Amino acid sequence: MPLNFQQVILTLQQFWAEKGCLLWQPYYTQVGAGTMNPATFLRVLGPEPWNVAYVEPSVRPDDGRYGENPNRFQVHYQFQVVLKPDPGDPQEIYLDSLKAIGIDPRRHDIRFVEDNWEQPAISAWGLGWEVWLDGQEITQFTYFQQGGGVKLDPVSVELTYGLERNLIGLHNVKTAWDLPWNDTVTYGEVRRREEFEHSKYYYEVGNVQAMREVFERFEREAEACLAQGLVLPAHDYVLKCSHTFNILDARGAVGVTERQALFRRMRELARRVGEAYLEQRKEMEYPLLKEAGDGESVNRESVTRTTNLPIPNIPTPFLLEIGTEELPANDVDTAHAQLVARVPSLLEELNLTHGEVRVFSTPRRLVVSIDSLSPRQPDREDLVKGPPADKAFDKDGVALPAAMGFAKKNGVNTKDLVVREDVSAGGKYVFAAVKQTGRATPEVLAEALPKLVESIKFEKSMRWLPASRRAGNESGAAFSRPIRWLVALLGEMVIPFEYAGVVSGHTTRGLRPYDSPEIVVPSAGKYFDVIRDAGILLDKEERKASIVEQVNQAAALVGGEAIIEEALLNEVTNLVEMPTAVMGGFDKESLSLPRDVLITVMKKHQRYFPVTHSQSTNLLPHFIAIRNGDDLGIDVVRQGNEHVLGARFADANFFVREDLKQPLEAYRPGLSKIIFQTKLGSMLDKSERMLKLSAELAPMLALSEVEASNLQRATYLAKADLVTQMVTEMTSLQGIIGREYALRSGEPKEVADAIGEQYLPVPQTKIGLAVALTERIDSLAGLFAAGLAPTGAKDPFGLRRAAIGVVQPLTEHGISFDLREAVRKAAKLQPIDVKEEVQAQILEFITGRLSVVLKDAGYKYDVVDAVLAEQSDNPARAAEAVKQLQAWVEREDWVTILPGYARCVRIIRSASVKSGQLPVVSEKLFVEAEEKSLYKAIRSVVRGQPSNVDDFLNIVVKLIPSINTFFDKVLVMAEDQKIKQNRLALVGQIAGLSTGLADLSKLEGF
Amino acid sequence: MPLNFQQVILTLQQFWAEKGCLLWQPYYTQVGAGTMNPATFLRVLGPEPWNVAYVEPSVRPDDGRYGENPNRFQVHYQFQVVLKPDPGDPQEIYLDSLKAIGIDPRRHDIRFVEDNWEQPAISAWGLGWEVWLDGQEITQFTYFQQGGGVKLDPVSVELTYGLERNLIGLHNVKTAWDLPWNDTVTYGEVRRREEFEHSKYYYEVGNVQAMREVFERFEREAEACLAQGLVLPAHDYVLKCSHTFNILDARGAVGVTERQALFRRMRELARRVGEAYLEQRKEMEYPLLKEAGDGESVNRESVTRTTNLPIPNIPTPFLLEIGTEELPANDVDTAHAQLVARVPSLLEELNLTHGEVRVFSTPRRLVVSIDSLSPRQPDREDLVKGPPADKAFDKDGVALPAAMGFAKKNGVNTKDLVVREDVSAGGKYVFAAVKQTGRATPEVLAEALPKLVESIKFEKSMRWLPASRRAGNESGAAFSRPIRWLVALLGEMVIPFEYAGVVSGHTTRGLRPYDSPEIVVPSAGKYFDVIRDAGILLDKEERKASIVEQVNQAAALVGGEAIIEEALLNEVTNLVEMPTAVMGGFDKESLSLPRDVLITVMKKHQRYFPVTHSQSTNLLPHFIAIRNGDDLGIDVVRQGNEHVLGARFADANFFVREDLKQPLEAYRPGLSKIIFQTKLGSMLDKSERMLKLSAELAPMLALSEVEASNLQRATYLAKADLVTQMVTEMTSLQGIIGREYALRSGEPKEVADAIGEQYLPVPQTKIGLAVALTERIDSLAGLFAAGLAPTGAKDPFGLRRAAIGVVQPLTEHGISFDLREAVRKAAKLQPIDVKEEVQAQILEFITGRLSVVLKDAGYKYDVVDAVLAEQSDNPARAAEAVKQLQAWVEREDWVTILPGYARCVRIIRSASVKSGQLPVVSEKLFVEAEEKSLYKAIRSVVRGQPSNVDDFLNIVVKLIPSINTFFDKVLVMAEDQKIKQNRLALVGQIAGLSTGLADLSKLEGF
Repeated sequence: MPLNFQQVILTLQQFWAEKGCLLWQPYYTQVGAGTMNPATFLRVLGPEPWNVAYVEPSVRPDDGRYGENPNRFQVHYQFQVVLKPDPGDPQEIYLDSLKAIGIDPRRHDIRFVEDNWEQPAISAWGLGWEVWLDGQEITQFTYFQQGGGVKLDPVSVELTYGLERNLIGLHNVKTAWDLPWNDTVTYGEVRRREEFEHSKYYYEVGNVQAMREVFERFEREAEACLAQGLVLPAHDYVLKCSHTFNILDARGAVGVTERQALFRRMRELARRVGEAYLEQRKEMEYPLLKEAGDGESVNRESVTRTTNLPIPNIPTPFLLEIGTEELPANDVDTAHAQLVARVPSLLEELNLTHGEVRVFSTPRRLVVSIDSLSPRQPDREDLVKGPPADKAFDKDGVALPAAMGFAKKNGVNTKDLVVREDVSAGGKYVFAAVKQTGRATPEVLAEALPKLVESIKFEKSMRWLPASRRAGNESGAAFSRPIRWLVALLGEMVIPFEYAGVVSGHTTRGLRPYDSPEIVVPSAGKYFDVIRDAGILLDKEERKASIVEQVNQAAALVGGEAIIEEALLNEVTNLVEMPTAVMGGFDKESLSLPRDVLITVMKKHQRYFPVTHSQSTNLLPHFIAIRNGDDLGIDVVRQGNEHVLGARFADANFFVREDLKQPLEAYRPGLSKIIFQTKLGSMLDKSERMLKLSAELAPMLALSEVEASNLQRATYLAKADLVTQMVTEMTSLQGIIGREYALRSGEPKEVADAIGEQYLPVPQTKIGLAVALTERIDSLAGLFAAGLAPTGAKDPFGLRRAAIGVVQPLTEHGISFDLREAVRKAAKLQPIDVKEEVQAQILEFITGRLSVVLKDAGYKYDVVDAVLAEQSDNPARAAEAVKQLQAWVEREDWVTILPGYARCVRIIRSASVKSGQLPVVSEKLFVEAEEKSLYKAIRSVVRGQPSNVDDFLNIVVKLIPSINTFFDKVLVMAEDQKIKQNRLALVGQIAGLSTGLADLSKLEGF
Repeated sequence: MPLNFQQVILTLQQFWAEKGCLLWQPYYTQVGAGTMNPATFLRVLGPEPWNVAYVEPSVRPDDGRYGENPNRFQVHYQFQVVLKPDPGDPQEIYLDSLKAIGIDPRRHDIRFVEDNWEQPAISAWGLGWEVWLDGQEITQFTYFQQGGGVKLDPVSVELTYGLERNLIGLHNVKTAWDLPWNDTVTYGEVRRREEFEHSKYYYEVGNVQAMREVFERFEREAEACLAQGLVLPAHDYVLKCSHTFNILDARGAVGVTERQALFRRMRELARRVGEAYLEQRKEMEYPLLKEAGDGESVNRESVTRTTNLPIPNIPTPFLLEIGTEELPANDVDTAHAQLVARVPSLLEELNLTHGEVRVFSTPRRLVVSIDSLSPRQPDREDLVKGPPADKAFDKDGVALPAAMGFAKKNGVNTKDLVVREDVSAGGKYVFAAVKQTGRATPEVLAEALPKLVESIKFEKSMRWLPASRRAGNESGAAFSRPIRWLVALLGEMVIPFEYAGVVSGHTTRGLRPYDSPEIVVPSAGKYFDVIRDAGILLDKEERKASIVEQVNQAAALVGGEAIIEEALLNEVTNLVEMPTAVMGGFDKESLSLPRDVLITVMKKHQRYFPVTHSQSTNLLPHFIAIRNGDDLGIDVVRQGNEHVLGARFADANFFVREDLKQPLEAYRPGLSKIIFQTKLGSMLDKSERMLKLSAELAPMLALSEVEASNLQRATYLAKADLVTQMVTEMTSLQGIIGREYALRSGEPKEVADAIGEQYLPVPQTKIGLAVALTERIDSLAGLFAAGLAPTGAKDPFGLRRAAIGVVQPLTEHGISFDLREAVRKAAKLQPIDVKEEVQAQILEFITGRLSVVLKDAGYKYDVVDAVLAEQSDNPARAAEAVKQLQAWVEREDWVTILPGYARCVRIIRSASVKSGQLPVVSEKLFVEAEEKSLYKAIRSVVRGQPSNVDDFLNIVVKLIPSINTFFDKVLVMAEDQKIKQNRLALVGQIAGLSTGLADLSKLEGF
């Protein structure tokens, strides 16, 4: 029988006490997490060491599920551990603790899945992982980087076990309620009623006004305590504020502005508490510093592992392995790409000749392999520039002190100095030919490799080294996750270097589920054998292929097909070193949930591959997970994953059931609580604007009366789902849930579909398109006016996507639409002034996106540019023009057409006249026959302005012979100004034909 | 190295888990004790079994000492255990838990000292002990009798370890700050700063108005939760109310009325929470009842221990031992006295002849020993009354059915029936002579002994038996503390009976410190040898003598004398079975504390005997404790006791230092927060009344101007010390502290002494007396008017003592004082109407006390009655009269004096006349010479009313001859009415002499 709930707690306490942790108690006021307990929140600040472990029954009102969910509760039991400073091997100690409570990593799937923890309410963040046990998140593992707004030094390792979920995995049960608390009573018997009651209180009973007042009083107490330097009492009241806020929030009582304000106030208090604590400890002279060990528990032994082998004398394989704690999937790719780009150029800079360079990456290792590397740099001679010649030698060529000094410094005789002209400096200088003996490669690399490692940058980096393990007083190395070992071999020889407190050696580590055994790599060349023997698929493409194959096989077993999206596949590939597919199932009843909900849960939360019928897109009640490791205990892994998914679906069910207690329409007023943007008001404000704008856009889109009415309804409901619990929980389901709930609320299918389509890049229905346009144009108008136009990489409101979302559907559907007019109408509806120049900016911005879209569609850039220079306000028409122009450009006779037309345009431009300034062509002023015949030709083919590019160019084609004859025979720039003006006017009639259609001067060959 | 703080917790958790306890966590909102955690507060209600253990960091704002006290803090760590139902041997399990954490009862002094726990805020109470470890209270051990106003069934055993104090004893250190929390950090390093900060917050910073508002809001939430049947959320808010109240209280912000009101509101809420919980569990059908074992873990094996020995046939020694858990000292005496009174009469009722009956008592056993007891009842014949003779037999003497039925029923023949006159019933009846064969003594006792045990009554009894161990459905046996074994032997034979689930046998238990070993008692006669061999001093007087001897010896060792007060000696004697004196010392600096503080702490809190210089009353820095057990580990016991006393004195020092931050006068306004009595207002109101009353009494006591001024000042300050922390902590020091602080505040010595003397039965200074009179008369006047006059045994306000306190000082000092007038003045000052008849009642009540006082002083009751019949309003004068009259009564010639005077009084009374109705004596109406000579005698010796008894009786003596002659010769009741009236008037002049002095008719021999 596995340990029961209380035995697990006792065992963890015993385990961590033996590791030097002080055992602490749960806090005496409600906290959302063990992190808020002062034993973490305050003690991680400042330089004093602190190792602590405690249980924390964590209170989170909005996780209440009335005791119905298998693993989600308004109170859950955390076991919290803080290790300050990092002991060097916290993952291994942690895994030992799992073994102590009976979880054998060999028989389960334990994964470290990226999780970047952030708690803005206390200005704290850290990097680390969710630890997964058979798909279940059982622990948060964080390197705490900042707390209370203060950078932490040293960094603390924070482990937060979710005890219920640990036990669910340990006991392989479906729900926490069935767990034995002790020998006689279950978890459910002790706690379930409590869950029901508190959920009811938090969601239905709590008095909003009273709690608001209580918040105020508590805040005032915190202030008073801070004024007296009372850190802990102040902290207590911050916690009480926080819990009171949570009650208000669970009651749905916190509006936009209030939420921001309350958060700001709590954050400010937390910051001041942190500062006051630091100040206090400083005054007390850090009493716990007495305990500070040297922190050098790990990795020091490797200092002795450098080898005294002779340096090879022929080109030899080289191998660098950077061994890390589990890297985030993205960071694996980022680092990989940087190494691919950096290593060859580095070798060139180092003047080391080499064979093929290959880079490999897994979540735990970044590998550079060079199949042959020169054992030393070649010797070489450099000319080193010295003083000016006249300062170096006198007129007689005798060396002056300057020359002597220079020669000595460079280790040559003065007689070997030569004088050369230095063109750039202008004058003659003394040069020394200095011979550089090539250095041995190990020596060169020992210097270069630390810099190479350091040069790898990540979107988010972390620190982990305690001060005592750092060289000098720098703030310590930064990396995506801690580096725990380094292998650097040239042949059999270790390249000795140290980075981030780790010394390079020849020992790598095996698979995580096999306990990461240390394995000696005999030589660089044998590295791949060693790794293969350890069961690790080093090559990402190989891993990916293996996953695809296994997933497809598994899906076939149930007669289905797996949905394999590239992004998910790539992520999963970067989460494992030895992929093994595990297929599990779920209750058929869950299939009644919206399909997208099921898929989102499987993919996003669980990184599973969903399975569909092979003949349809309908889902099968199966999923495929990728385990890291072999198939030992695979049934337990499968069941564990099934339980997790079951709980997730139960939660989704809870949301859907709760949400459906009222129709979609009923959620709309709640939009007032969601901010859109401070200056632009709430989502309800936006929704109201959309309603007005859609009414104005309907005629512009030529909607029928019925369509216009559906559009109104769809726009009215479009944003309502943002207020539902399901979307609050999974934002990516917005629109999808709106559509689903609209249908279940009895809305017309057209309306429901439009709600769902509003977030698609290209809505398929006309109403959907109209809602999307309305939404996007409103955003562009408002946000540009609010000064939030995208700059550089910053585009927090996704305005690029919005603009593309305007032009792409219009062009794809070929719907003519006056963007300028639409923007003008949207601008008028904004609560802030949208100036004309801003409107122009917006149109320009949209045109930019249109240009990209068209080019991406395969049109030549010059064609696109030519058209957009003349027309962009109507994307569909512009696209049509591009299409036509592209066809013309691709014609064989284009080389005759364009130059002829170009001559007309150019002469007009060189004369610096604009069409409007030219006189009307007068036949009387014609002098040459060619003038007359051109005039005649024009009169015969031109009927007003051409309406599209084809019309225009068909005219031009007909005029080309006359144009060419005209320019061959007639001097346009006649001395007689009247004649000149008349001729220009004649040519201008042709040049002006492209106005509003395309500016052919933008074309290649013009 | 003993276990550190966290190891002790782990060990206790492990220990109690193995005993079947569920391990629970500290509560997530501030509680004053583990009892408030729902795992105790709610789970003790109802029939479901529940065994639980948990740590509870308990928050008590007013225990904050700024981190300065060695063992008193605003947060202390409790380890809470609840065993429901009582497992039968909770003390033994508890002692095993102490062994588990390294406390060996053989090497320490572990005592179970009566403690009756009560928590009115939650309508809860229980009986049990403080467990002392070397004088330190380390655990509260309670049989929980009521919770939330509900009688608990089954009763829960509640153990509350004070972890810091356990550890202080275990580590033999002076203060908790030095305790190791784990291997690297001390308790002080983790917690001391927190103590300072929170103390400061609670005493100085907390916002009173805000907390008051928060209380209101929380209360409203609790109400709202109750209205929805949400038990736990409601309970949470009751706890929050309670903590908020504690903050207000620590800030000194809670006035009389408010305190009562807030308590009432909290109590009411707690009661409703309890009820709602019970209701809820009932609806849920008590899910945990599934676990109910039969609860028969203990004592059942003794059922088999009855013996089959033959019944003795000669008078044989008998022995009954009722073995209990430690009885309160008072209850030992109570039970002892009841057995002494009850056993002989019981034996008589049972018709068992016997030799000497002796009763013994210790805290753990009540013993009845009979040196020889008849082995059976004698045979006997009883006449049993049947039907009336005429219904039994017809005229011919033939038996009718009534006679036959009666004969059959009594096992006799109808012919053996006899007919007798029954005087009381009036008539002839049939009687049967029924022979009763005497039953064997074991049989008789087996029935009688349970009733004997049951008949022992205590001031407070408790229940402890779980339902499953009870016969039938009665609510279980009650006793002072649980009965755990019964020895009942007649010779070698066990008298088999069962009481309270315990079956009698021949096994007693040895000394608690020796682990209470089971010891077989071979026979009743050998019991005393067995007990002596076990080291137990069974005889109380022997124990007492041993204690006195050891204490005196110990005191002599330091050249001092022990203060041995009888009450303390008696209590200590009842706390041990094997007394061993331990002398310890304390810091000399503590001697600067007021002497009475030191003595009170030693005696009242610690049950120590203080030691004085042999030549003075000055204290020496020593104390003598009485340990239960031998001298093993006596040094540890001594040091432990020293540490406790050190902490107690530190606390006293804290109070005194805090108190002396302002002069005594400054405390007086605080009296408004202490209620005197609802109708009579606060102590400040009382103090104001006293001030006015003392001004009026001053002339009545003939005080000089200076004295009157000092009286005013003393009365003004008299009650101020009630507000000080020292008196709040130790109420018995009221007055003593007032005197001390008055002196230190620069008040005149006369004023200070008077403040101190106000509580003495007989103040020695005039001012002190005046303050006392003022205080007591005000109380009598007000409380009688409020309907709180003592009735029966009820005297909650100590009015009997107050009345004695009025008369005794007046009589002892011989100060003439008009009580009637004083009561009248006091009455006028009361806030409620004190009617004249109430005033009369008061005077009558005081007179009653005066009577007692005088009789206790050795005066004959008839003398006292005689005087008090005529004068009582002036106690000093009455006492003087009693004294004089007593002297007269004791004279040899009294037999001649009283009869003579009596003749005068009697004839007046028999004539039913009152002196006022008689005419003036007229010489003209005299007939006889003896009339004239009596008249003459009267005229010669009587000069108006005599002013005291001596004067009066000196007159009477002189008149006796004339009186005697008068009555011998003269017929007073003459037929001539005028003569008769004249003669009566003459005699009336003599009879009237005693008016206002004494009513001699009350005297014996009158």
